[in-house]
Amino acid sequence: MPEAVETLDGWYCLHDFRKIDWSAWKQASKEERQEALNEFNDLLTSWEEVESNRNGSVGLYQIIGQKADLLIMNLRPTMEELTELENTFNKSKLAEFLIPAYSFVSVVELSTYMAKGKDPETDPELQARLKPMLPKWEHVCFYPMDRKREGDNNWFMEEKDERGRLMYEHGMTGRKYAGKVRQIITGSIGFDDWEWGVTLYAHDMLQFKKLIYEMRFDEVSARFAIFGEFFIGHRKTKDDLNEIMGV
Amino acid sequence: MPEAVETLDGWYCLHDFRKIDWSAWKQASKEERQEALNEFNDLLTSWEEVESNRNGSVGLYQIIGQKADLLIMNLRPTMEELTELENTFNKSKLAEFLIPAYSFVSVVELSTYMAKGKDPETDPELQARLKPMLPKWEHVCFYPMDRKREGDNNWFMEEKDERGRLMYEHGMTGRKYAGKVRQIITGSIGFDDWEWGVTLYAHDMLQFKKLIYEMRFDEVSARFAIFGEFFIGHRKTKDDLNEIMGV
Amino acid sequence: MPEAVETLDGWYCLHDFRKIDWSAWKQASKEERQEALNEFNDLLTSWEEVESNRNGSVGLYQIIGQKADLLIMNLRPTMEELTELENTFNKSKLAEFLIPAYSFVSVVELSTYMAKGKDPETDPELQARLKPMLPKWEHVCFYPMDRKREGDNNWFMEEKDERGRLMYEHGMTGRKYAGKVRQIITGSIGFDDWEWGVTLYAHDMLQFKKLIYEMRFDEVSARFAIFGEFFIGHRKTKDDLNEIMGV
Amino acid sequence: MPEAVETLDGWYCLHDFRKIDWSAWKQASKEERQEALNEFNDLLTSWEEVESNRNGSVGLYQIIGQKADLLIMNLRPTMEELTELENTFNKSKLAEFLIPAYSFVSVVELSTYMAKGKDPETDPELQARLKPMLPKWEHVCFYPMDRKREGDNNWFMEEKDERGRLMYEHGMTGRKYAGKVRQIITGSIGFDDWEWGVTLYAHDMLQFKKLIYEMRFDEVSARFAIFGEFFIGHRKTKDDLNEIMGV
Amino acid sequence: MPEAVETLDGWYCLHDFRKIDWSAWKQASKEERQEALNEFNDLLTSWEEVESNRNGSVGLYQIIGQKADLLIMNLRPTMEELTELENTFNKSKLAEFLIPAYSFVSVVELSTYMAKGKDPETDPELQARLKPMLPKWEHVCFYPMDRKREGDNNWFMEEKDERGRLMYEHGMTGRKYAGKVRQIITGSIGFDDWEWGVTLYAHDMLQFKKLIYEMRFDEVSARFAIFGEFFIGHRKTKDDLNEIMGV
Repeated sequence: MPEAVETLDGWYCLHDFRKIDWSAWKQASKEERQEALNEFNDLLTSWEEVESNRNGSVGLYQIIGQKADLLIMNLRPTMEELTELENTFNKSKLAEFLIPAYSFVSVVELSTYMAKGKDPETDPELQARLKPMLPKWEHVCFYPMDRKREGDNNWFMEEKDERGRLMYEHGMTGRKYAGKVRQIITGSIGFDDWEWGVTLYAHDMLQFKKLIYEMRFDEVSARFAIFGEFFIGHRKTKDDLNEIMGV
Repeated sequence: MPEAVETLDGWYCLHDFRKIDWSAWKQASKEERQEALNEFNDLLTSWEEVESNRNGSVGLYQIIGQKADLLIMNLRPTMEELTELENTFNKSKLAEFLIPAYSFVSVVELSTYMAKGKDPETDPELQARLKPMLPKWEHVCFYPMDRKREGDNNWFMEEKDERGRLMYEHGMTGRKYAGKVRQIITGSIGFDDWEWGVTLYAHDMLQFKKLIYEMRFDEVSARFAIFGEFFIGHRKTKDDLNEIMGV
Repeated sequence: MPEAVETLDGWYCLHDFRKIDWSAWKQASKEERQEALNEFNDLLTSWEEVESNRNGSVGLYQIIGQKADLLIMNLRPTMEELTELENTFNKSKLAEFLIPAYSFVSVVELSTYMAKGKDPETDPELQARLKPMLPKWEHVCFYPMDRKREGDNNWFMEEKDERGRLMYEHGMTGRKYAGKVRQIITGSIGFDDWEWGVTLYAHDMLQFKKLIYEMRFDEVSARFAIFGEFFIGHRKTKDDLNEIMGV
Repeated sequence: MPEAVETLDGWYCLHDFRKIDWSAWKQASKEERQEALNEFNDLLTSWEEVESNRNGSVGLYQIIGQKADLLIMNLRPTMEELTELENTFNKSKLAEFLIPAYSFVSVVELSTYMAKGKDPETDPELQARLKPMLPKWEHVCFYPMDRKREGDNNWFMEEKDERGRLMYEHGMTGRKYAGKVRQIITGSIGFDDWEWGVTLYAHDMLQFKKLIYEMRFDEVSARFAIFGEFFIGHRKTKDDLNEIMGV
Repeated sequence: MPEAVETLDGWYCLHDFRKIDWSAWKQASKEERQEALNEFNDLLTSWEEVESNRNGSVGLYQIIGQKADLLIMNLRPTMEELTELENTFNKSKLAEFLIPAYSFVSVVELSTYMAKGKDPETDPELQARLKPMLPKWEHVCFYPMDRKREGDNNWFMEEKDERGRLMYEHGMTGRKYAGKVRQIITGSIGFDDWEWGVTLYAHDMLQFKKLIYEMRFDEVSARFAIFGEFFIGHRKTKDDLNEIMGV
């Protein structure tokens, strides 16, 4: 018998991964490159102002490996704002040199059991989790995931209590990493090709591996998790970006 | 023992997803861009006239994320009209700047049990469902899907009554979203790589996630559904398009 | 215990799917375009002459959707003729504007039980089926397929009698569509990535969907079929092609 | 309990599949094209001299279908020679017009049971099989394959005797095609993405299909085989190549 | 019941596979090519100095087959150093001619049972394994891998003792190849799309195949291993690179 599924949903979220087209970038004139960086700095400034006003949040990261060079992450109260923001960015000069590598469309999601009688519309802690300021921690890790629906390992056929037990156990593993790893879970069922996105932050990159490795032995991961691509990188400022793209 | 499979089939449908080639678009002269937009506006106008005459329907949507920027969706009484329409669009100036991203070829499909003694050729409600005007609602969600044929979860080996029971339950979940989400189911067996396409409309984008998440716990989805890529976006007018593509 | 597998094999077959490179096509001069079309018309004429002499067959189709725009299908008594024909076509002017989209290499295949004491080398009906003239019907549908070799659903581990029973049942479903759908089965084991190719013809495109949907409930499809990409389109003449490519 | 796995290993082997870039080829001047062909003819001549000296073998084939146009196959006593040969070819003029389509890196492999007391270092028959001259037969077929490791069908968990029995049965099927099909098995575990490569030769192309179809019913194939892409084509000489590439 | 997972983690590691863009390389002027090689030689020299100072390690390899032409492998105490190193390399002249083919981000990983009471921070043998100098052996082999989580073959659901038994057996197979094959295991859970990377070194390339083939019969591989792409090649010096890229 299907049950009602209830989640608390917060800000919408767009992860935008890009690869730098170095050949084109180097062929551009110094003036063009400066103009492109200036315009993007202005864009970043405007997004940071939105964050200052608590109407969204923004993060800029340098990604390691060939899958991507940069991740631009934005959160907003509505999807329309993200669509418009993406459109503006795509029209910018810098975007001509930033080849799309991967994107993820989702919404910040909390389990309703976290509400336990609190009003999610007014409770400060819930509000802070639903409309999160992206942590200013040094390192970021992102991956999308699904829950299996195979034979005896069909997450969506498990009893609600059993799912609760498995998630509780999983949460216990996460709790050991309090202060070391922060996570933002975003739901993408109906929005993108995976069911959830996991964005992690750490001061020490090794903690990503320790946490995810340990969690892989949790029954909920061992039996039900399907993982997509993993991206890792470092938080960067505007000045860092000028450095990264300096040729 | 195989049984006769009967469906009511209505208008043919072409989903045409495109990515904007921003570099080429910006390199074009202002006159070229205007000419391209004018020509496409004329095309859209001609398609809207077909819709006014109840000989088809058309929708233009802006898609979020890197998978696509635009979705052009057309319905027609015959596949030949769609093929010709696609050919005309491909020859247009604007198409030079719109890189193919994904397409889906299908036909509007209803279960025969909906007919219950009505004549689908004359019954107004059935006719409206088989030859639908695309809703003018704000948001759109599209995904293709299959039914599994694996071990104990083989949809096409299930008894007809059992399939009926599962679909009825599934329909009950959908019914909870009446007024919030509208759906158009199109069949693509024999036409495209997936068995069905689901096109949803909503005023509030979050309802897509709520509906699809809740449905994932329906036995028919949990045991039998295989999902393809998800695309979401917003309905747009000609004027919106000029804005979106304004550089 | 393995058994001898015997099939009757007829003409070799090359399906050549192409996408039109509209930007390059439009950038070519009017003279170049005309020259390209003239040369291809000559090629088509030569292929049609081969068909007139019953030394092969040819079909030209316009495909709907982004997967391909055209399908050129040729049958010949030897594979070398097809290889040479492909080489000639690839060198032609028009081929510069037709991007390869998908190809399929196979040979017309009949079950030996169809021979029932007839000499396939001389029997007119068998000869007509092994060296088929492609139907001049309006619509075409092509898809490749495999038989599963998974757990209890391993086609190649089934007893010969059981396979015969399943294929007979399957054939019964097909027979209901006599006069509505014609099929050419080509074998590609050892020649291409799938085991068989199915090419269907119909006057009414909806019959493709009805037939394939109904067949999906046949036990042989439900338990053993793996389907590749589906392509559908319309038969076209030389004049139609000039129209399709007219810019 | 794991057992020692022993194979006899002979010459290293590189399959290099290429697609002809016809547009670039036709844009080159007549002189450039001639220069490119001359240089490649010289390369081929040098490889044929290596073959004359029994220090390797070479084959040139025209492939049908869009997957590739040419296959250049070389065998050498060491992998370094193949790497150097590939580097030399990649620097050649003709390689500018031959787009990489697929490659396969492997080593000729025989089962040790073939040795039965013979010294593989000196026995003439074993030496001929380990350091094979590529047959000058008309047609070629190549495909890579794996052995399954799934549930009850886990090749690497089967007892050695059972594997022997299955391979013996498989060999019996192959033996029926003596004189019709010749095969070279190369091992690629640790070298490339598949475990083995199968290269077949025939005078009559239909024999590829007959052999592989019949073998698919062998228990070892039905239960354990995973097949990669299939490529087929015809053996070609230098003069043939000039013809194939003549524009 | 989940258990704590503990590993010893050493230097971070970036495998950077590249394909040479021969057409662009040959179109560059002799001066440009020399400048590009000189600049890269300087980069290599600086990385070798880091290695001399025991602050990292570097390896340059020529890869055979179409998947890649070169592998540049670097180890460093922090991920940031690798990210910066990659950024510097991407900006270099030579990188304009080296198309990204595959990359792998990981960290050197040892099982804690190797520590047996030793202090990994000070024990010389553990330090040498955690901060390895890449062997100067002739040949290299790289592949990523996962452990299965399927039905009865779910590595992460196995008891710790059973996992230990299986790994011990696996290690015994490896030990037979002491002096013939050296391996560096790097962990990539949370860092890249696979769980581990295996980098092997040998004086005789055939030993890669013998080792990996024999290991495939180990229960841990037969039941639990999922393998990614395999890359093999030869260690090269700066002078070798000048030779490889000489046109």
